[in-house]
Amino acid sequence: MDHIQDKTNNMNVFNQMESEVRSYCRSFQTVFTTASNAKMQDVNGKSYIDFFAGAGALNYGHNDSRIRTKLIDYLLEDGVAHSLDMATKAKENFLLTFNRTILEPRGLQYKVMFPGPTGTNTVESALKTARKVTGRTNIVCFTNAFHGMTQGSLSATGNRFKRAGAGLPLSGTTFMPYDGYFGDSIDTSAMLEKLLDDPGSGIDLPAAVILETLQGEGGLNRASASWLRKVEQICRKHQMLLIVDDVQMGCGRTGTFFSFEDSGILPDIVCLSKSIGGYGLPLALTLIKPEHDIWSPGEHNGTFRGNNLGFVAATEALRYWESHTFQKEIKRKSDVIHTCLSRLAADYPEWISEIKGMGFIQGMSFHEPEMASKVCKEAFHNGLIMETSGPFDEVAKLMPPLTIEDEVLKQGLAIIERALKTVTENEAGRKVVVTTDKVEVKV
Amino acid sequence: MDHIQDKTNNMNVFNQMESEVRSYCRSFQTVFTTASNAKMQDVNGKSYIDFFAGAGALNYGHNDSRIRTKLIDYLLEDGVAHSLDMATKAKENFLLTFNRTILEPRGLQYKVMFPGPTGTNTVESALKTARKVTGRTNIVCFTNAFHGMTQGSLSATGNRFKRAGAGLPLSGTTFMPYDGYFGDSIDTSAMLEKLLDDPGSGIDLPAAVILETLQGEGGLNRASASWLRKVEQICRKHQMLLIVDDVQMGCGRTGTFFSFEDSGILPDIVCLSKSIGGYGLPLALTLIKPEHDIWSPGEHNGTFRGNNLGFVAATEALRYWESHTFQKEIKRKSDVIHTCLSRLAADYPEWISEIKGMGFIQGMSFHEPEMASKVCKEAFHNGLIMETSGPFDEVAKLMPPLTIEDEVLKQGLAIIERALKTVTENEAGRKVVVTTDKVEVKV
Amino acid sequence: MDHIQDKTNNMNVFNQMESEVRSYCRSFQTVFTTASNAKMQDVNGKSYIDFFAGAGALNYGHNDSRIRTKLIDYLLEDGVAHSLDMATKAKENFLLTFNRTILEPRGLQYKVMFPGPTGTNTVESALKTARKVTGRTNIVCFTNAFHGMTQGSLSATGNRFKRAGAGLPLSGTTFMPYDGYFGDSIDTSAMLEKLLDDPGSGIDLPAAVILETLQGEGGLNRASASWLRKVEQICRKHQMLLIVDDVQMGCGRTGTFFSFEDSGILPDIVCLSKSIGGYGLPLALTLIKPEHDIWSPGEHNGTFRGNNLGFVAATEALRYWESHTFQKEIKRKSDVIHTCLSRLAADYPEWISEIKGMGFIQGMSFHEPEMASKVCKEAFHNGLIMETSGPFDEVAKLMPPLTIEDEVLKQGLAIIERALKTVTENEAGRKVVVTTDKVEVKV
Amino acid sequence: MDHIQDKTNNMNVFNQMESEVRSYCRSFQTVFTTASNAKMQDVNGKSYIDFFAGAGALNYGHNDSRIRTKLIDYLLEDGVAHSLDMATKAKENFLLTFNRTILEPRGLQYKVMFPGPTGTNTVESALKTARKVTGRTNIVCFTNAFHGMTQGSLSATGNRFKRAGAGLPLSGTTFMPYDGYFGDSIDTSAMLEKLLDDPGSGIDLPAAVILETLQGEGGLNRASASWLRKVEQICRKHQMLLIVDDVQMGCGRTGTFFSFEDSGILPDIVCLSKSIGGYGLPLALTLIKPEHDIWSPGEHNGTFRGNNLGFVAATEALRYWESHTFQKEIKRKSDVIHTCLSRLAADYPEWISEIKGMGFIQGMSFHEPEMASKVCKEAFHNGLIMETSGPFDEVAKLMPPLTIEDEVLKQGLAIIERALKTVTENEAGRKVVVTTDKVEVKV
Repeated sequence: MDHIQDKTNNMNVFNQMESEVRSYCRSFQTVFTTASNAKMQDVNGKSYIDFFAGAGALNYGHNDSRIRTKLIDYLLEDGVAHSLDMATKAKENFLLTFNRTILEPRGLQYKVMFPGPTGTNTVESALKTARKVTGRTNIVCFTNAFHGMTQGSLSATGNRFKRAGAGLPLSGTTFMPYDGYFGDSIDTSAMLEKLLDDPGSGIDLPAAVILETLQGEGGLNRASASWLRKVEQICRKHQMLLIVDDVQMGCGRTGTFFSFEDSGILPDIVCLSKSIGGYGLPLALTLIKPEHDIWSPGEHNGTFRGNNLGFVAATEALRYWESHTFQKEIKRKSDVIHTCLSRLAADYPEWISEIKGMGFIQGMSFHEPEMASKVCKEAFHNGLIMETSGPFDEVAKLMPPLTIEDEVLKQGLAIIERALKTVTENEAGRKVVVTTDKVEVKV
Repeated sequence: MDHIQDKTNNMNVFNQMESEVRSYCRSFQTVFTTASNAKMQDVNGKSYIDFFAGAGALNYGHNDSRIRTKLIDYLLEDGVAHSLDMATKAKENFLLTFNRTILEPRGLQYKVMFPGPTGTNTVESALKTARKVTGRTNIVCFTNAFHGMTQGSLSATGNRFKRAGAGLPLSGTTFMPYDGYFGDSIDTSAMLEKLLDDPGSGIDLPAAVILETLQGEGGLNRASASWLRKVEQICRKHQMLLIVDDVQMGCGRTGTFFSFEDSGILPDIVCLSKSIGGYGLPLALTLIKPEHDIWSPGEHNGTFRGNNLGFVAATEALRYWESHTFQKEIKRKSDVIHTCLSRLAADYPEWISEIKGMGFIQGMSFHEPEMASKVCKEAFHNGLIMETSGPFDEVAKLMPPLTIEDEVLKQGLAIIERALKTVTENEAGRKVVVTTDKVEVKV
Repeated sequence: MDHIQDKTNNMNVFNQMESEVRSYCRSFQTVFTTASNAKMQDVNGKSYIDFFAGAGALNYGHNDSRIRTKLIDYLLEDGVAHSLDMATKAKENFLLTFNRTILEPRGLQYKVMFPGPTGTNTVESALKTARKVTGRTNIVCFTNAFHGMTQGSLSATGNRFKRAGAGLPLSGTTFMPYDGYFGDSIDTSAMLEKLLDDPGSGIDLPAAVILETLQGEGGLNRASASWLRKVEQICRKHQMLLIVDDVQMGCGRTGTFFSFEDSGILPDIVCLSKSIGGYGLPLALTLIKPEHDIWSPGEHNGTFRGNNLGFVAATEALRYWESHTFQKEIKRKSDVIHTCLSRLAADYPEWISEIKGMGFIQGMSFHEPEMASKVCKEAFHNGLIMETSGPFDEVAKLMPPLTIEDEVLKQGLAIIERALKTVTENEAGRKVVVTTDKVEVKV
Repeated sequence: MDHIQDKTNNMNVFNQMESEVRSYCRSFQTVFTTASNAKMQDVNGKSYIDFFAGAGALNYGHNDSRIRTKLIDYLLEDGVAHSLDMATKAKENFLLTFNRTILEPRGLQYKVMFPGPTGTNTVESALKTARKVTGRTNIVCFTNAFHGMTQGSLSATGNRFKRAGAGLPLSGTTFMPYDGYFGDSIDTSAMLEKLLDDPGSGIDLPAAVILETLQGEGGLNRASASWLRKVEQICRKHQMLLIVDDVQMGCGRTGTFFSFEDSGILPDIVCLSKSIGGYGLPLALTLIKPEHDIWSPGEHNGTFRGNNLGFVAATEALRYWESHTFQKEIKRKSDVIHTCLSRLAADYPEWISEIKGMGFIQGMSFHEPEMASKVCKEAFHNGLIMETSGPFDEVAKLMPPLTIEDEVLKQGLAIIERALKTVTENEAGRKVVVTTDKVEVKV
């Protein structure tokens, strides 16, 4: 297969060997080599600012040097790399640090389940737990939710295209409108309540509600604290469990470690993955209220529950949360993002319909959905990695690492502004041309 | 939570913080610290020989030094650690090496899908692919199969206890008797054929058959080559895909890189994970015949598809397969195992019913199932890690790293022999006591 | 089992021999013997006015004399009684009469499927048809819908208690809010449209919408014509079939033969049963637009598709529809009902919240749900058979035969009024007594 | 639609108005008018002997005169025709007669459930009951089983073509090989037992086994008494319910009222329909052991549970069972059938592979499946109605009324013999021609 190494197009290996299912390498057509915090370099030496951050798996940036040092040390001292779910010192350290740094300061008491190292693993384990605990099968999930690609998680994921990938009808879930889905004047939690209170609604009593407090893939829709509390009350009323999928929104993405911290709710189960691994290493946790931890030993398992490099990296990453500085910095920098986007929205009202999201996940929603892709493409051309989101890919989404330097953040925002200018001018030009054409045709 | 750090019992942190679902840490009650090839050490400085090898994820042993060097180099040079499914140099190297070292020499042409880094991810993606390709939903799987813990994979897993963990009825699969399930005189592939040929059998035409060539969790049941070929013929006859789940049996565990190499079958889809990651790092591949690679971009995805440390480790691990030496050594050492077990079976015919498995996954099946656990427990007491397998946990299973040193292998086998001696003597003693008791009672 | 015939309680046979599932015989505790139009007699010679009409199966009353004559004639001439789905003269007559009397005058072209003789049979066949035609599996149904008790129909039925009777999770359906479900200010058809238009809503594109234009079991909720037309447009937009379940509302119950005649919609499939059998004999039809009649011969079947006494009775019953008189009389008499109920609502505003329904299915909804049962019980005591409806059994429902004599109708309404008076006085009395008690206690 | 009444082809009305799903009217292309016991007449005055008997719904023949008299009397006296599940004198008589005539003499104690008037209704109610009682969802059913066309029953039906009609994957059932399915040397009940005993088999513990003691639609496969008893033991061992679907085999079809009477088993639930209605009228019963009758009132219902003409006819029909004469006559006449078929099998060994069935449901299985259809077609041409059965329609099936006169039975058998002669001669002729052709080609 020597022909694969065609110098003229460095994507050849991927195009020829990798499945058609590959996706991001189509949007970002280059081969990356190194990375550091919010920057990536490709084989041609070109540098990119990363406003995608591993889809939220790199909250602490690429290759954090403190974490890297810990990883190298662990490797050098022959620390157990892989341990299934046997006890290791690295895992113990992680558990203690997680408890000390995250749970205790927030007054939370959760048992920690290691369900396998990915987001969909923790979601599947959460659904299983809720069904076991309640003896019910139905799970309430929400429009435009994203929970994962394995059959159970996919059943709770809204995207029709991805659902069809299952190749069989997905069941066991009921989709309800997310907060604001039907506009500001309609309280969708009241709808949920009515449907559950009504013994004739056709909605079988659910084992749980699973939700993201802010829907990253679904278009940066954000649930209000009052809506979340109302949903929690409904869960209590009907003895349903409340599951918060914090896989993407957790670890500080929205400004606090858990995305729900300021909302006043106390989930029964919390799903964590992505950035919990610290260095982008596969790791996932399912946090379960002790009274719901009714698993039998081994009833759920998985080979990579003991990714000790993940524990080492995760433990070191948690140090970011030891003082309040980190959280304050997130707030300060996310205000920078918000200020910039708000200005752009004001400057381009005919293109941008809305600024969405919060913290380090914000985006511009466009009147014409395809504009979002155009802006992202132009930005990539100019050295910025960012992606679209939403059911119509209508949102250009910014997800920089939380650790991004001020200077780099500004550079990235400037690229976006420039991309927006270029694309809208092109569009306007195209529109003019079209008009001109028409005129000419008429003449 | 200072109280957790009770010096008198070093499992306290796990007992108090980890979910009840934890399992192996209950069998192996100590906290491990370091590891090297086939040996692990615990916090007390005690050393253990590892005949479990990460349930097959550590075919190249713990912390292989060549791989470690590569990992450290990659970390030091700031190689991209996490890349979603963007193109990276590390991924490119892996693909090229995999093609050059594994696929080409075996005349195989597969597209490579990265479905997420775990075994259950690759199985889920394989089931999706088969259903997409055929437009059918039913999947034939086999008694005592193990394919994973997420809903789709669990539907194809035989273990009733783990299935119940789903909390809802699992569907979309039909279980058929594995080779030899009803004894030597019954050809279970002929049963499958009759049921599929019969339009009144109630078996909806399947999208695929998924099978392990040797059932690791299911009790080391091994399918004959002729049975595999017959199953493949049935798949061709009914336009079904043949999926081989080589998650545990691949990467040399049975003696060849793919477990099916010597059988004469050519699967449509192959699932790889566990040892493909080289160093015990999460990685999984789904190999798909090009004509079946009909995925749309992004139709299946996952955050940790781009675990570049996994690519680096996997690439280096594949070097083992560059010469024939490795394979010959596996053969030689697995003969040592087999000779030893056969002798034990001959020595303890009243206890051991059968030696099962092949290559580096062999085991002793006991007439009284609980004997297997007792032997494993006694062996652990004497510094050997090994586990049971089979529907009744009736098989004491040996899965050393393929790279185990001869001396360590012999030590491990000696521990087993001693454990067997101890346990059987205790049992005999207990029986005698029981008999004596009875006699006494009678007197 | 002589003891069964205990004279002192004539329900003994039923109590001892019949399953606990029996229901109406618990509300109406007597043994009926004869019946004629809107009257039934029991073994004690007591006469009852029937405002239940076989739950809508007796639109032409009990034992219509013209139909009876035809039945006796057919029996006497040895007409084929049972014919599976073979062709018989009786069936031919029915088909021709149905075409001439019902379809042609309304400009309708439907193929007629005989799916088995019950409501749930026609619904199951309609769902199958829609899934076959579209290749999709999801069916949209509505809150408080009732479509039947077999697994497919039950999946589309809203009642949680009856759904639980399935003993396994029901799937393949999505429940949407019926017209008015969330109050007058919310257009639930717009909700449906948004959810279907949104590729991220989690609602898989449906094969069909199935609905009742007026929900008989669900509490006499009535869909407006504009809502029905909007739903039809949504069906067209997404290539979904529109199924109207006219099992209970058809055959004139709402005032026209088909309940949807005046709404401006043209369903793809119409389900008929109950009164189509004319004399209360089991019969059901599934009307299918010719372009959707893609069944293969025998792909759906059933033994009792050829209940020829049903054909004979049904054919004669259709004669009611030959002139416009019948429909006018329904209108006239249903106005009588409405006038009466409206007056009662005005007289008892503290008890009656709303008059619901239309035509010959109207009812009083009570503020306190249990009042409906009390009124029905008191009415039965006074010789009137009527039942409750709605998710909380909060509606006292009137469903007299369409053929009821004016005098009998008035008598029935008078009994209701009297029952209402008695029950409300008792309630008020109970309340007063309670108050008095309290006062006494205080003294 | 006057054009429908085309005199030249009397099937026009059906061809134009009835759904494509119609089936038997395609095999028997004429319009029937009258019928009496085992004879039917068509519009052309042609007489047919009926060896189909309403697919088992007419065990007492067409239009039994005693039953007819009772029906006419009941109609004339204005007996309640339709009563939902209210108590009526006709229903009471039926219950008492059923108890006195059927249950008591056989020492059986069953509660009687009226689940709706068709076979699929009773099966659906039986499955619900078993799932409710056990809290399990899986149902074991058998290859080539037929239980009905609604979703629950269809899930337990083996026919792939009919299953596909559901339009969605059917679940909740596990198909096992019926007695003899894999040949005489393999005990399929032992297979079932092993799979259920094995906690790794993938077979979730079932709520029930549902079976026909003789598979009418499935090809007249008959379960031995020892196999039935073994299956019953397995049910007891695993706390599963045993459901016998006697819809077609009950009411004397196999020689005794219940088909299982002589086998030594005592089902937990028995499904009855078809001939229980006496006159071919829709009626069905679900017999439930009292300890399993845990239904809540109204948890399952249906409009046509109270088909009182069915009760009247059924009550009178049960008189056949008051003396032993009827059963003896069945035996005597079924011997006549068996003798005849055995002689034909001996005469045509190159065509007939086997005589199958027992009692009044026997058939000839052909080496070349299409021969069965040819024989049935030729027989119909000669005035005999009979149908094929089996997964390949390979069995020509005889199901005369149990009440058939000796003379008519002989005439029918003679027609079969003649049809067999004609068809085989034609086939032989065709074969010769083919041979001749070949010879010519060779020349």
